Amino acid sequence: MANISRRDMLKMSIVGASSLALSSVNANASENEKDIKFDEEWDVVIIGSGFAGLAAGVTAAKRGNKVLVLEKMGRVGGNSVINGGGFAVPNNPLQKKEGVKDSDELFINDCLKAGLNINHLELLQTIAERAKDTFNLTLECGTEYYDKLSHLGGHSVPRTINTKNGSGSGIVHPMVAAFEKIPNTEIRKRTKFDDFILETNKVVGVKVKENYKFDQKLIDDDNENTSGEIKFIKAKKGVILASGGFCNDLFFRQLQDPRLGVNTDTTNHPGATAGGLISALKIGAAPVHLSWIQFGPWACPDEPGFGVGTKFNSGASFRFGISVNPKTGKRYMNELADRKIRSDAMFKVIGDDKNYPINLCDSQVLQHTDPERINKPLKTGILKQFNTLEELAEFYNIPKADFLETVKKYNEFVKNQKDLDFGKPLSLATTKGVNISKPPFYAMRGTPKLHHTMGGVKINTKAQVLDINDNPIPGFYAAGEVTGGTHGASRLGSCAILDCLTFGMIAGENI
Amino acid sequence: MANISRRDMLKMSIVGASSLALSSVNANASENEKDIKFDEEWDVVIIGSGFAGLAAGVTAAKRGNKVLVLEKMGRVGGNSVINGGGFAVPNNPLQKKEGVKDSDELFINDCLKAGLNINHLELLQTIAERAKDTFNLTLECGTEYYDKLSHLGGHSVPRTINTKNGSGSGIVHPMVAAFEKIPNTEIRKRTKFDDFILETNKVVGVKVKENYKFDQKLIDDDNENTSGEIKFIKAKKGVILASGGFCNDLFFRQLQDPRLGVNTDTTNHPGATAGGLISALKIGAAPVHLSWIQFGPWACPDEPGFGVGTKFNSGASFRFGISVNPKTGKRYMNELADRKIRSDAMFKVIGDDKNYPINLCDSQVLQHTDPERINKPLKTGILKQFNTLEELAEFYNIPKADFLETVKKYNEFVKNQKDLDFGKPLSLATTKGVNISKPPFYAMRGTPKLHHTMGGVKINTKAQVLDINDNPIPGFYAAGEVTGGTHGASRLGSCAILDCLTFGMIAGENI
Repeated sequence: MANISRRDMLKMSIVGASSLALSSVNANASENEKDIKFDEEWDVVIIGSGFAGLAAGVTAAKRGNKVLVLEKMGRVGGNSVINGGGFAVPNNPLQKKEGVKDSDELFINDCLKAGLNINHLELLQTIAERAKDTFNLTLECGTEYYDKLSHLGGHSVPRTINTKNGSGSGIVHPMVAAFEKIPNTEIRKRTKFDDFILETNKVVGVKVKENYKFDQKLIDDDNENTSGEIKFIKAKKGVILASGGFCNDLFFRQLQDPRLGVNTDTTNHPGATAGGLISALKIGAAPVHLSWIQFGPWACPDEPGFGVGTKFNSGASFRFGISVNPKTGKRYMNELADRKIRSDAMFKVIGDDKNYPINLCDSQVLQHTDPERINKPLKTGILKQFNTLEELAEFYNIPKADFLETVKKYNEFVKNQKDLDFGKPLSLATTKGVNISKPPFYAMRGTPKLHHTMGGVKINTKAQVLDINDNPIPGFYAAGEVTGGTHGASRLGSCAILDCLTFGMIAGENI
Repeated sequence: MANISRRDMLKMSIVGASSLALSSVNANASENEKDIKFDEEWDVVIIGSGFAGLAAGVTAAKRGNKVLVLEKMGRVGGNSVINGGGFAVPNNPLQKKEGVKDSDELFINDCLKAGLNINHLELLQTIAERAKDTFNLTLECGTEYYDKLSHLGGHSVPRTINTKNGSGSGIVHPMVAAFEKIPNTEIRKRTKFDDFILETNKVVGVKVKENYKFDQKLIDDDNENTSGEIKFIKAKKGVILASGGFCNDLFFRQLQDPRLGVNTDTTNHPGATAGGLISALKIGAAPVHLSWIQFGPWACPDEPGFGVGTKFNSGASFRFGISVNPKTGKRYMNELADRKIRSDAMFKVIGDDKNYPINLCDSQVLQHTDPERINKPLKTGILKQFNTLEELAEFYNIPKADFLETVKKYNEFVKNQKDLDFGKPLSLATTKGVNISKPPFYAMRGTPKLHHTMGGVKINTKAQVLDINDNPIPGFYAAGEVTGGTHGASRLGSCAILDCLTFGMIAGENI
């Protein structure tokens, strides 16, 4: 701010979340350049340091670009670093090892089914085709993976690879290190993107606030927070928007679904707001699927936020066990359906009296999944351990006889590899023959929590942001949760890592 | 254009559909005023001459304002003038006459159920509370109504009043006449809104093209059509956006649902594009529910567009008869469910082989609904008349025995006032005791067609357009289908007239 007068500021072409006033402009480009005094100059500026931003950064920097990554929070990684570390890779090496047959077509059809067929097919095809390259990028950066597949809901077959540490941080941290090793790169924390700088209709830079202190107590941090010092940064080759989703934007999420008020818990980090998305809409980016907001069905009501309950439910109970309504002792859904189907079914059970479903499995799971999926939630106390099914039923006040009958019936289904009640996929590749019989038994209360915003700006297969006339906005790319279309109405579990990394990488290749 | 140089144009603050370039601005308001040379000056400028625009116009003009209504097409009324003329009015006089008990609460709950509970409740409450005023406005303007109620899908009780001529034109034409009788008013046809003119962040006028020739052959008329002469019009008190929905905007509708390509028929007039909506988003209007696009389940595949089949299905066959799958001879849905439920059910029946459902009723309907609902589609040949049910089954190739059994069962349901198969409301107020027994029988093939876009800009209960910070954009109002939130995920039939007229009226009261 120091070296730019108020008059100069008003003369610039700034359009963004915090300013409706369309301040200044340029009869032509040269005049415009005269008006703007940039504090710094980079080849590529990336907004956000999650999966998409980092993959873009590494890829663009490897091509010799001078790359700056902006991160408004005090730590890198946004939602990615607290993500569960599941990475859907169709046709992956672990599938070969475990004898699972997969194909791009099967993967795409699974996504279309969950997405209610409103997915933008060209984007879906792109993440399928590039999955191997994307997986390799993480290996090159140093990510280590667990040696067993997961089978997440909505996927026809097990196709999810997991980071060794069971978290997205297993991808984020090596990628940060790889990025920072490349010359002429920087990740600048506590630096908030505020507005795009345009030259006619081309994105040529950003206005930011440095030394920004995100304030979780504000209803609308993007607009109320005035901390930090304003700086103008030139991006010679363009800007990549990778600012993530808006599950923690109270105002914008309620615009799309008024039920999502302050009491709706979310798995997202506090900084998951809509500021970047809104700035993009204001410079003409086409909006896609903004009103599709997803609940993750594998959370636990007995801890706040993402927590560790997800580890148990998405990796153990839903695949190797069952979910029952404690009032009836009966199952009520396919535990491996897509997220929307499961969340809708769970909300019906929960009703107005917080009748949270009970998710359970037995100790055989320890041989087929990361034991931390049991150990971590046991340690926090949200997962309970029982010596008998009767004890479990008593603890949660479930009608005992009906519950035992439910387990018996489910075990028959596992044996026959066919769920006659809800159509859960029970092939041997999925169940490994695990039924519910071997103590100790593990159980946890379950609930859906706000997890992913499907909508965002429209991009093409080169990760260029398209305007409402279907034309790329020059100098403007986007990747990850801030984009819309890939997942249609509902994203399948573990497809976020694939989507974010792939389009981040593609943005880095093309900018 | 004549008296404004290119240089002047570039200096103005124009943001809109046709220009991503944010051309010029103002260090302060006075400079800005100096830059702009308006060709005309009005108190209020209204974009669109449908229900919302006209109600806004009449109301604003009655308050002494000089009001200009812009209409890009060669005729007034947009979709409103071809609308079916059904007007949901909770607690209306015809309900009293026919002994139907209704309440605001019942109406709101019906709308919330169809809207999947994502409706903006304050807007829904507003149209319920003001319904009587809105109905009276149409009576004052001279609309005549038919003397029997309709019962449309998703409403718990019959509450739909119908214009005497069975069309929205029965409201539009008297309202146009009433508007034009008021001094200092004008409806200017073939005049297309292009861009908003801003003074800092206040809407102070519009850029238009006069003598515009809408070109149905263009993929994207809003952006490709260069016909007409540019003019700048000042709106001293503000602009009311009433530009309608975007069911005929090939690009924008496919952004939200890629399946809605050129082969997807719609009931909408050719000019139903997204240009006005997009211009509003570009000046910071908050977007709501853009991806919810509705099919009307009462159309006919044997005629293009809205046609006259709707008259039969929405007023006769769905209420007094049944819809059967011609392959099975059986019913497959509650014919009075909401539009989304019915459309989804019908698409399943239609499948990939165009197995259109058959909608039918008997001649008793002529005593309980406008006979034109039968006569008009009979004349065009899309409705068929049969002396026996057997003949009907033969004509449509329906398995005879199963079909006769279906009719027999349905007649039992009517007698007992209870649909045991699909839960269709069969109280005497709805059926008037009409079953399917008295020849001649009438039948028509049915299909859903694209009908209404639920999404749009966010308004408050004063019809002010809100920006992304929840603040009204000064000088900017909106009403009707271009707004979002009132109907949530799916609008109930005959609520469009109520919504459009009410918020149009409110905009006219507040501007």
